[in-house]
Amino acid sequence: MNETKKAIVLISGGLDSATVLAIAKAAGYDCYGLSFYYGQRHQVELHAANQIAKNLHVKTHKVLHLDLNNIGGSALTDDHIAVPIEGVNNGIPVTYVPARNTVFLSLALGWAEVLQAHDIFIGVNAIDYSGYPDCRPEFIEAFEKMANLATKAGVEGQAFKIHTPLIDLTKAQIIQKGTTLGVDYSLTISCYQPNTQGHACGVCDACRLRAAGFEQAGMADPTIYMT
Amino acid sequence: MNETKKAIVLISGGLDSATVLAIAKAAGYDCYGLSFYYGQRHQVELHAANQIAKNLHVKTHKVLHLDLNNIGGSALTDDHIAVPIEGVNNGIPVTYVPARNTVFLSLALGWAEVLQAHDIFIGVNAIDYSGYPDCRPEFIEAFEKMANLATKAGVEGQAFKIHTPLIDLTKAQIIQKGTTLGVDYSLTISCYQPNTQGHACGVCDACRLRAAGFEQAGMADPTIYMT
Repeated sequence: MNETKKAIVLISGGLDSATVLAIAKAAGYDCYGLSFYYGQRHQVELHAANQIAKNLHVKTHKVLHLDLNNIGGSALTDDHIAVPIEGVNNGIPVTYVPARNTVFLSLALGWAEVLQAHDIFIGVNAIDYSGYPDCRPEFIEAFEKMANLATKAGVEGQAFKIHTPLIDLTKAQIIQKGTTLGVDYSLTISCYQPNTQGHACGVCDACRLRAAGFEQAGMADPTIYMT
Repeated sequence: MNETKKAIVLISGGLDSATVLAIAKAAGYDCYGLSFYYGQRHQVELHAANQIAKNLHVKTHKVLHLDLNNIGGSALTDDHIAVPIEGVNNGIPVTYVPARNTVFLSLALGWAEVLQAHDIFIGVNAIDYSGYPDCRPEFIEAFEKMANLATKAGVEGQAFKIHTPLIDLTKAQIIQKGTTLGVDYSLTISCYQPNTQGHACGVCDACRLRAAGFEQAGMADPTIYMT
């Protein structure tokens, strides 16, 4: 069999996952994009995810609805908790969404089983990141182990692999990598609180990490900021 | 602090999870019931879950919506795949929903973090069960390990525990246990394909395991079957 291998790629609409999609594609996978409408500022992020998926020619782009705002507990899913704008601090910030990557990867795992795919790509990063516990390599390793015990495919010996090609890269390295692969970063949006036109606030952690990344990479930042 | 401990209890509307809820309550936990509308025969199962939650006085009963039928791959989430009725076989049947318990436990984990609960109860069972990989003790153990790396609470040293009080019990023992705790099994529904009145088919694996359980326990079976 010389069939192209399938991969599920989680696409958030941000810079990291767009780069991951380009990497998976360059590695020869047929890519199946997965995004979530989980009560975030969806129109803008999901519009970006959709544009990125089209631009990089995924086979299918699926958007699953998820009730994370019914659970709350994060500035990204509860309107009563403000997004911090005073700069990146140590510790886990209020933008942490409880168990988000666990939930996203679990649903990716379910779809992977249905598609008979064994490769899942996620843009977690443990360098220029927001201190989320579910972005660390030890979490990914534990998830992979669990996934192979949880599933029919795992039991039958077709191990799942969670690919994290950005995990050891700085934001600048991610941007450089994506640029060589032709990622159009003007389609991506990183801001935690963009306006309805997709313009970025410039002061949340995600905006700060993104801006510093473009600067360190010596590249023009295509982000449009609110005026 | 003499505060009552909180527990999240997954409630499906079936016999097993109703028993688990009674066990968690008897152990002194304040119980928070979690159910999912994931494209299953929801009116009937979720109605049962709701009745059970009320009957056993949970603090809150949350029903999260989940797009599992957008993924498909199971007789329980895809109308094009028939529920087998020829009896329980070895191997993983087509009623297996890809990664279902992983997804359910992940969302329970998210809610647990928000509630500052560290105990999650699930009615998995590795004796009289349908051969699902995500009902085995090794899966639960791997999930627990992953959960403690995935979360803010886990990182801060407040370990999560996944309780599986039924894991080593036969269906008959589960029914006996629940009966001593006052579970009203007439509220529960196990059938994979009940009609809209909640009457059971009597021939799917879940019906067969349930009926055999009541028989072996020497108890009257309150199930109402289709005529």
